[in-house]
Amino acid sequence: MSRNSALSRGEVVYAEWARRIKRSALQEMLSIASGPDILSLALGLPAPELFPTAALLDAASRVLSTDRNSLQYSPPGRSLKTRIVELMATRGVECSENQVFLTCGAQQGMNLLTRLLLDPHGQLVTEEMSYPGFLQVVEPYQPEILAVPTDIRTGMDIDFLEDVLDSGARPAFIYSVTDGHNPLGVSLSPEKRKRLVDIARYHNAPIIEDDAYGFLNYGPSLHPPLRSLDDEMVYYVGSFSKILAPSLRVGWIVAPEAMVSRLSIVKEASDIDTSTFAQRVVLAYLETGALPGHLELLRREYGGRRDAMIAALEKYFPEDARWSTPDSGVFVWVELGVSVDMPSLLRAAVEDEKVAFIPGHAFYAGKGRFEKACMRLNYSNRGVDAIEEGVKRLGRVIGNLAVSSGCEEFACQLAGSG
Amino acid sequence: MSRNSALSRGEVVYAEWARRIKRSALQEMLSIASGPDILSLALGLPAPELFPTAALLDAASRVLSTDRNSLQYSPPGRSLKTRIVELMATRGVECSENQVFLTCGAQQGMNLLTRLLLDPHGQLVTEEMSYPGFLQVVEPYQPEILAVPTDIRTGMDIDFLEDVLDSGARPAFIYSVTDGHNPLGVSLSPEKRKRLVDIARYHNAPIIEDDAYGFLNYGPSLHPPLRSLDDEMVYYVGSFSKILAPSLRVGWIVAPEAMVSRLSIVKEASDIDTSTFAQRVVLAYLETGALPGHLELLRREYGGRRDAMIAALEKYFPEDARWSTPDSGVFVWVELGVSVDMPSLLRAAVEDEKVAFIPGHAFYAGKGRFEKACMRLNYSNRGVDAIEEGVKRLGRVIGNLAVSSGCEEFACQLAGSG
Repeated sequence: MSRNSALSRGEVVYAEWARRIKRSALQEMLSIASGPDILSLALGLPAPELFPTAALLDAASRVLSTDRNSLQYSPPGRSLKTRIVELMATRGVECSENQVFLTCGAQQGMNLLTRLLLDPHGQLVTEEMSYPGFLQVVEPYQPEILAVPTDIRTGMDIDFLEDVLDSGARPAFIYSVTDGHNPLGVSLSPEKRKRLVDIARYHNAPIIEDDAYGFLNYGPSLHPPLRSLDDEMVYYVGSFSKILAPSLRVGWIVAPEAMVSRLSIVKEASDIDTSTFAQRVVLAYLETGALPGHLELLRREYGGRRDAMIAALEKYFPEDARWSTPDSGVFVWVELGVSVDMPSLLRAAVEDEKVAFIPGHAFYAGKGRFEKACMRLNYSNRGVDAIEEGVKRLGRVIGNLAVSSGCEEFACQLAGSG
Repeated sequence: MSRNSALSRGEVVYAEWARRIKRSALQEMLSIASGPDILSLALGLPAPELFPTAALLDAASRVLSTDRNSLQYSPPGRSLKTRIVELMATRGVECSENQVFLTCGAQQGMNLLTRLLLDPHGQLVTEEMSYPGFLQVVEPYQPEILAVPTDIRTGMDIDFLEDVLDSGARPAFIYSVTDGHNPLGVSLSPEKRKRLVDIARYHNAPIIEDDAYGFLNYGPSLHPPLRSLDDEMVYYVGSFSKILAPSLRVGWIVAPEAMVSRLSIVKEASDIDTSTFAQRVVLAYLETGALPGHLELLRREYGGRRDAMIAALEKYFPEDARWSTPDSGVFVWVELGVSVDMPSLLRAAVEDEKVAFIPGHAFYAGKGRFEKACMRLNYSNRGVDAIEEGVKRLGRVIGNLAVSSGCEEFACQLAGSG
């Protein structure tokens, strides 16, 4: 009569989806690659020397010394929502406090929206190359992933998406990293933004817009996010992790007002929907008016690092390699244009040259195996000299391991038809 | 061909479970009852005047001025886990750092464990009167809830539980608030602790032990939690919310080491498994050695408030009323022993007497309707004078509305057979 008499004592019976969880070989490798002697271009970390540490300490001090309830449970603060409404206006988005929902980072934003929208085994649309953290969010639902190719100059292949929807797919949502795409570094072209929203409306397929990187833009002009084109079908996810500090874990969703109360109930179940100490610190920081200047600093610094990375790629990478030139965000995507076993390349990079990156297959959301020789490189976490040195070392490892081959086709395949 | 052509534009298609989400009438009422003129005994809030605010500010200042990476993504800190191992030892629990997993409060602890263990429509065991935050956690899974009665002097009815398991139930887990039960205020007797763990082992049904209140004990002796009796079948959930400050959102799980890496993957998907700023502040606070003294203060203060509430109940409540006398935690459970419509009583209490409580039915996890005249009262958030005044006002409202009736049976029913 016992639940699982065939099991030995203490053997855990996990939920069905959770039995398949395991750390990938890539994660193991990256854990090795996080050692202090490794020049890592792998993760999307901000530059710690640019954190506004003193200003945040002032903010924390003000919070604790002026508000006795700052350590208590209390509803998420309207004042912080007001500041976020102002911040969204700088991105060309009009919204109200009642449409803003505070989260524990963008990751929680995606998690809560997925929980509200996705049924087990439901369908969803994402790009073929996608943010692994998003794929982790949806995994417990064992969804049917409809993967859409991406052009690394103009973004998601909207024609392909339209075909998918026209042929009867009924996705719970379309996931879009509109600016500074992770991992591709591309921003969706203005024409495609409009078409994507039109198609989403026509098919009543809402869009989750992940804008973790949109405030970090280096181009002459910044295109407003999808949310500026539609306030009902687009659920916008924002975060202070990349523009202020990740360990604060403060992010937000902009959603239709009717959805916000449901988000609150789902968040209560997740970790209690309360105004956290970190939220109060962020508010106190924003109230000083320091954010615009800080954003300028980040854009200038990260823009310079991006330029340094592109210059180093031109200098040290194989002739057939090509890469994205990001207008926003913190990543460059590189297609090597040579034939090389990527796990071996990563191992050699870490062991022989003490440099790390993330191989392309880690981002692949499509069916079958991803065999192309691609990598994602981060330029926000290291200074320009380290970036040049890292790319130089990578170029050396590639030179040692790669067998040059007519890989033009890879680039074309990945670039899609859009 | 569009997903939901019958829907009007912008109408949201929620996941199936989420379509039924709505704010209850009780939640609406409590939202009214949170006004500044209401003497609320409703929520489980700590006393804000007892927060160690200055010490936490010192801690935050130390963190920001000595650790450049304190604002960065980084793995959850081993040092904080070491402090938690020491803290668990004061509860009679032996565990290692590798068994400790850091969470965003106890609520997230329950959420992550549920996610790992519960399949959609799976079975679980909880007490008939249960913490609504727990019921919220499991609701998306639409589980079959096996509700077990509770004796308000000795805790969960273990005979009843044994019958449930013997008759073939296969719960994913048994949920237990072993000390300072929310809402009943009871602590499980030592004999029942041992039997509960034995039965869980025999049936290979793990226990989620929610110990949010166990460190707040007022009795002469403190019984070790279930985790002290079994390190494989009991997953312990702890929190600094009640003993330090809720808005920090720092809690922990003690689980078998093999489960911890899975928890990490599930947490990454939920909100990124990173060492938060608040975790670092808690660590810096614990390093000063101030917690034991702070816990003494809380026990002395809250113990006095508990005594004040019991004395006021004796003075102002109907003769047939009976209540729990908690050894731990922050709640007293009252069975009024009179016949009264509880929603009307709450409305009259808030509107006429400006006092609030939570009616018993809000905690009911069993089948059918809960009709008994019961209430949960909190004594941690207000000083002794306010507590006496609040109970006095409640006694007046009950006197006005109640029809005395032979309600002895209610008490017996609720007390169960254990």
